Amino acid sequence: MTENERNEDKSEGLTVKKEEDFSEWYTQVLTKSGFIDYSEVSGMLVFRPAAYFAWQEITKVVDAELKKGGVENVYFPLFIPERLLEKEKVHFEGFNPEVAWVTHAGNSKLEERLAVRPTSETIMYASYSKWIRSWRDLPIRYNQWNNVVRWEFRHPTPFIRSREFLWNEGHSAFATREEALKERDFVLGIYLRVLKDYLALPGIPGVKSESEKFAGAENSYSIEHIMPDGYAIQGPDFHNDGQNFSKAFDIKFINKNGNYEYAWQNTYAITTRELGVMIATHGDNKGLVIPPKLAYVQVVVIPIIKKGEEESVKKFAKQVSDELGKWFRVKLDDREGYTPGYKFSEYELKGVPIRIEIGPKEVSGKKALCVRRDNNEKREIAYTELRQGIESMFDEMHKALYERAYEFMTKSIHTAKEFTELKEIIEKKKGIVQAPWCGSASCEKKIKEETGAKITNIPFDQSGLKEDSKCVYCGAKAKYVANFAKSY
Amino acid sequence: MTENERNEDKSEGLTVKKEEDFSEWYTQVLTKSGFIDYSEVSGMLVFRPAAYFAWQEITKVVDAELKKGGVENVYFPLFIPERLLEKEKVHFEGFNPEVAWVTHAGNSKLEERLAVRPTSETIMYASYSKWIRSWRDLPIRYNQWNNVVRWEFRHPTPFIRSREFLWNEGHSAFATREEALKERDFVLGIYLRVLKDYLALPGIPGVKSESEKFAGAENSYSIEHIMPDGYAIQGPDFHNDGQNFSKAFDIKFINKNGNYEYAWQNTYAITTRELGVMIATHGDNKGLVIPPKLAYVQVVVIPIIKKGEEESVKKFAKQVSDELGKWFRVKLDDREGYTPGYKFSEYELKGVPIRIEIGPKEVSGKKALCVRRDNNEKREIAYTELRQGIESMFDEMHKALYERAYEFMTKSIHTAKEFTELKEIIEKKKGIVQAPWCGSASCEKKIKEETGAKITNIPFDQSGLKEDSKCVYCGAKAKYVANFAKSY
Repeated sequence: MTENERNEDKSEGLTVKKEEDFSEWYTQVLTKSGFIDYSEVSGMLVFRPAAYFAWQEITKVVDAELKKGGVENVYFPLFIPERLLEKEKVHFEGFNPEVAWVTHAGNSKLEERLAVRPTSETIMYASYSKWIRSWRDLPIRYNQWNNVVRWEFRHPTPFIRSREFLWNEGHSAFATREEALKERDFVLGIYLRVLKDYLALPGIPGVKSESEKFAGAENSYSIEHIMPDGYAIQGPDFHNDGQNFSKAFDIKFINKNGNYEYAWQNTYAITTRELGVMIATHGDNKGLVIPPKLAYVQVVVIPIIKKGEEESVKKFAKQVSDELGKWFRVKLDDREGYTPGYKFSEYELKGVPIRIEIGPKEVSGKKALCVRRDNNEKREIAYTELRQGIESMFDEMHKALYERAYEFMTKSIHTAKEFTELKEIIEKKKGIVQAPWCGSASCEKKIKEETGAKITNIPFDQSGLKEDSKCVYCGAKAKYVANFAKSY
Repeated sequence: MTENERNEDKSEGLTVKKEEDFSEWYTQVLTKSGFIDYSEVSGMLVFRPAAYFAWQEITKVVDAELKKGGVENVYFPLFIPERLLEKEKVHFEGFNPEVAWVTHAGNSKLEERLAVRPTSETIMYASYSKWIRSWRDLPIRYNQWNNVVRWEFRHPTPFIRSREFLWNEGHSAFATREEALKERDFVLGIYLRVLKDYLALPGIPGVKSESEKFAGAENSYSIEHIMPDGYAIQGPDFHNDGQNFSKAFDIKFINKNGNYEYAWQNTYAITTRELGVMIATHGDNKGLVIPPKLAYVQVVVIPIIKKGEEESVKKFAKQVSDELGKWFRVKLDDREGYTPGYKFSEYELKGVPIRIEIGPKEVSGKKALCVRRDNNEKREIAYTELRQGIESMFDEMHKALYERAYEFMTKSIHTAKEFTELKEIIEKKKGIVQAPWCGSASCEKKIKEETGAKITNIPFDQSGLKEDSKCVYCGAKAKYVANFAKSY
């Protein structure tokens, strides 16, 4: 095999810079690193091992946290009969335009079209209605891990606007509004923690405006991110559905006084979109940068062979790899015929958090040269202290990634008191503009028409709202500060 | 709330006996216990918490074992374009009659129909063909955990013949036939172990006949079970696809000598059907019997309240429940207004492996009265020895379930040398008839036509084949002993 042939087998490096062409960089970094691939179905992607691994880790920790809080897992059918999907009108109008419809089975036409679930409220609540009779049957706090299809007609983007994605969908029913409302902080707390501790991502929690809320909800809450190109993107969400669905689906129960009441419901989700936000946020011009807890390979050990020293170097590299393999996900790359530099680039592209170089100097010194992916920091760690040393480097790297992302987010949140100011920031800097708002849908609509920015959410942190704050558009007394941004 | 109302809320007991009307018993035991429910889509079921829990436990252990052996997880799209599905002709003919077709997205007709995956060979291998260039890229051993749809037109039966089911689908590509063949024992070994150690199910491993093999395979292997009604049912399977798919999908690589070769492939799966076999095998006329490792609730603690002793009994019951809760999945049922007998029936119906009764005698003796679900055996265990005691009871129960199932299987495997004998056993006793077979498809076909029994598999254990064995149908020299049975 010639060097040329070998190079054909490998992904080339990135041909654009993140800061120059973010969108092209994003798709290159995802595909050339082997994280994902496009598939034969437009808008649906292939999760290769590193991507599916990261998602599986996220599901594990979210699943454990939800269960600890009393949530139970279930699995409902993939298909939803059209008559069910139509039952809650607002919900149906929201989802109908992007539903994939099954019309035939084998050579037979179905009597009724079946929607491939875009979300499962309707099919789940048809069952809840059968199961819930008395206050003793409540609460029901069920969750599913599954795949959903929403046929995006805009330019599909891997993870970000995907026609199929993976998620959890939690669907609860409570006897009282108060109990239902209490679930919000529990769920958003889990999402915020997992984003921070596993994906190294900050986010802005808040409530959606009336115009932007979920189709069928009474109140929607979201965690919003800011992408490197300055556009906002919605992350995990939580919806108080009030009694909207319970009335549409007749989910009622006999309360302790013997009267019938409708249940109070919530729904919530975290999706594979977060993998896209993670990649976009941390990646650089050398490739992916994956936070250590989600990295499929956490450490790669590369022997640096010099003539005459092959055996001792290879042996020690293997020893280091075996030792670390007890604690971490480690790969030893002792392939011959590839230069160390070639290997370095490959694992940088793949975002492996730590590269260990083992040469004659490391052998004689019984140590390892450890290089951090995110900042190229080099550290010599004694063989006997490898586990602690690598753990510290992971911790520091995770912290650094989060802090860098947090700093970027903070820098990207601007404030405006005047509409001209808001408009100028949206046009020139993008990011989020936090501005006082009177709460009226008409001001919200006009701002969107004139700037392209919508309200991503009304942040929980309302410290920006003053006694005398006036709506950035109409000048009336402001009820909130809201976050305006152009958004994915 | 009156006692009547309360009873309406609860599942009633079973109204038929397993040995008298197995099919009705099976659906009653699944639905009345709250294990599953029917859904608004005919043939697709709802996995309620206990069912999904059992499946999640199975996936965890199979997933860990596959990974230990070098298999990696991926995720491919739910939809497969029709032109891809058609590529391997035999495969397409096998699956086409039961494919659910997506024809519309929103209000638009799609240019090409999309199959909801009945299995993912075709979409995965289109990618393999891009990814595999050189022998260095091999082997690829990828696996997916997902949902698939096969539109059964026969009477759908929960888990057994479901229009949607959950499974793992492993799809490997190797450089040589030998390597590919080696994977068989690794995979079937995992399946057999998990069936035995978690589901308490025995099975008969063997090779499928030419007529019964997977659409597109060179050789199919299966683990077969016998259901309580004497019908055989196919369990997990493994297929050597040879080069059938690699030729259809152009999966070729440059070998070490610089020549192009087609890859050698395997596929394998374990599905949620096994939950059905588990329920059918172990359940009895009181309800489900779930092996302890897969039971959502492993121990239920029930205080037996007598006037004047309420406080001490409740307190000790809670103490027992809390202590056991450190090690097991425990539920304390201290609801008032339900008799102990009512609660006993409820947890028997749900298949909880151990019930603990706590009354005044247990309080004063600092002990727990533990009752095994499968055989009603009662054991008093001292508070200080609870953990060990329950663990022993679990082990004994698991062993007893497996042994009972194994004994039933053994008793249901008959042998026949003459066709009349084979026919009579199939008609009168059902089960499996192991009989010598010449290997010809025409004898196989005629046996099926005349008895309704097909070859479930040719068991790996060929000790029944003698030097002078003659085909049970044509009398020619026998090549194998094959297992004939009426089958689900």
